[in-house]
Amino acid sequence: MIQTKGYAAQTVESNLAPWNFERRDVGPDDVQLEIIYCGVCHSDLHQIRNDWFPGIFPMVPGHEIVGKVIQTGARVKKFKKGDLAGVGCLVDSCRECKNCKKGLEQYCLNGSVPTYNGRNKDGSPTYGGYSNNIVVHEDFVLHVSEKLSLAAVAPLLCAGITTYSPLRYWKVGKGHKLAVLGLGGLGHMGVKFGVSFGAEVTVLSTSPSKEKDARALGAHKFVLTSDSAQVEAVKETFDFILDTVSAKHDMSFYLSLLATNGTHICVGAPPEPHLIPAFALMGGRKSVSGSGIGGLPETQEMLDYCAEHDIVSDIEIIDIKNIHPAYERMVKGDVRYRFVIDMATL
Amino acid sequence: MIQTKGYAAQTVESNLAPWNFERRDVGPDDVQLEIIYCGVCHSDLHQIRNDWFPGIFPMVPGHEIVGKVIQTGARVKKFKKGDLAGVGCLVDSCRECKNCKKGLEQYCLNGSVPTYNGRNKDGSPTYGGYSNNIVVHEDFVLHVSEKLSLAAVAPLLCAGITTYSPLRYWKVGKGHKLAVLGLGGLGHMGVKFGVSFGAEVTVLSTSPSKEKDARALGAHKFVLTSDSAQVEAVKETFDFILDTVSAKHDMSFYLSLLATNGTHICVGAPPEPHLIPAFALMGGRKSVSGSGIGGLPETQEMLDYCAEHDIVSDIEIIDIKNIHPAYERMVKGDVRYRFVIDMATL
Repeated sequence: MIQTKGYAAQTVESNLAPWNFERRDVGPDDVQLEIIYCGVCHSDLHQIRNDWFPGIFPMVPGHEIVGKVIQTGARVKKFKKGDLAGVGCLVDSCRECKNCKKGLEQYCLNGSVPTYNGRNKDGSPTYGGYSNNIVVHEDFVLHVSEKLSLAAVAPLLCAGITTYSPLRYWKVGKGHKLAVLGLGGLGHMGVKFGVSFGAEVTVLSTSPSKEKDARALGAHKFVLTSDSAQVEAVKETFDFILDTVSAKHDMSFYLSLLATNGTHICVGAPPEPHLIPAFALMGGRKSVSGSGIGGLPETQEMLDYCAEHDIVSDIEIIDIKNIHPAYERMVKGDVRYRFVIDMATL
Repeated sequence: MIQTKGYAAQTVESNLAPWNFERRDVGPDDVQLEIIYCGVCHSDLHQIRNDWFPGIFPMVPGHEIVGKVIQTGARVKKFKKGDLAGVGCLVDSCRECKNCKKGLEQYCLNGSVPTYNGRNKDGSPTYGGYSNNIVVHEDFVLHVSEKLSLAAVAPLLCAGITTYSPLRYWKVGKGHKLAVLGLGGLGHMGVKFGVSFGAEVTVLSTSPSKEKDARALGAHKFVLTSDSAQVEAVKETFDFILDTVSAKHDMSFYLSLLATNGTHICVGAPPEPHLIPAFALMGGRKSVSGSGIGGLPETQEMLDYCAEHDIVSDIEIIDIKNIHPAYERMVKGDVRYRFVIDMATL
């Protein structure tokens, strides 16, 4: 077993604190990474607080992992010692179902294995990236380009793929009007990808202070949703709304901004169900859709696309000891746009 | 003005009763129909009771109209005296917006004019098909084949196009598993079209007595949704669910039956908003969509398709004096599958 240092929540009531635990030995198909950076996702906080479902404790969060390969199993072909590599939200899946066979491991019909707060096939809990190393089957490890800032790549493993995947699936690009709702970790990546894919990107926000940021990220337009004249001007105009908000919000309002045949794509998950009147959909053949992270082939495609087009996340690097103050700022939206833990501070 | 006999509700509290009113004279672009049959849509009852919004009274319901052309205006080109013809849910639209120009008059961005309970461009109220004649601009009149039973064509003008349009838009056909939810006026047409388009059609019902009917209509499978073993067998399997139910129902349950990338299409409108957890959509890139009736070109296409493939509605012809007992039976689901008023009884 591999002695590992990390930060864990021992119970749902406790804060994260240093914890030593063991990883499995490197098996023939495994890759061991030294973790250099790990992004801080809003879902890390949701999960240590059991906001969505009862978690497995002690819990070591973190699923935006980048680092360097330090050991490879005998059968590993795709990685060698010294390679940069990443691990995202999944570390395994059934590999046999229809979806896994199509590279849609995120929709594994038998349940994929999340990077933390899940269980390996042998029943052992998975521990995430707030730690100094991780051991993962090579099929769930991704190549990371040396061309990009490594710290700024980390959030691509969740915030990046979560926004890239639906924009690709719905073929968002030239000729489309895309609205991005919520300008946080996911939203700022949605703006970058939307612009890169050729769409006309509008940021919808309740806060006038976001306009400058939105434009700096490349957004073409900004709509202050509390200003009725600005709202009136964009009624029935957007082909897509990429909804990254995980707090309750008024779906009827946003559906009224969608053009005929438009699609409202949920990638944020509020705790309560959305309230959606059938008439709001029927009145213009509109859709409310959801999308979850991405499969392994598409995650690699996204990382390669980012390397080619020089796209990374905008980040603020933190010391792991400051994780709770960082969570507090994240909840207030006071981060541009993703915290990334420097694992040297562990 | 043209003296007209009909059945109207004088107020939201009153039942339908005989009422004489006037139609406009036949203008140069107008067609006058003698109404021979008019289908009874659930929305007729919703509207005389103000279930959805405050109505315009006196109200003459009816938007599943078939009859014979008895007069045409000087500029009318597409119809001549003696032709069979139909009028559906719309009698006008702005004709200038993006949607009207594409033949999507049902999604007219300036508000289309409904056949009843609406207002013409001059502000006068529209009166529907529970009457002996109607005057409509030729662009909103449809050709009806002599090959089909005229009474059984009437419901195609609403129940038919409402189910045909989404199945065409989403290209439902060979290789797809389609579930139809609700086996009433809309649902039975959904089954017929789904089968005709080559999909594998399953009827979902809470009532075991519907199985025989579903199979008689051509459905390949039947799932009793109160039987957990039957439900388990179809979890995550349907590419599409055509949801014709206008009473409250549990969307999370039905979303669990959709396959990855599946679409739940709402054509029924319950009075309360649907409750839709974002996770139920994100867990398999699922969509909840809506569709409303159809545009004029597509409605004609549907009528022509029905003539070619010998598709009509299953109907029960009634005397207009029995409209309220018919509503009572309709509300209980005791109709196979659409009441049609014989206007000779007026």
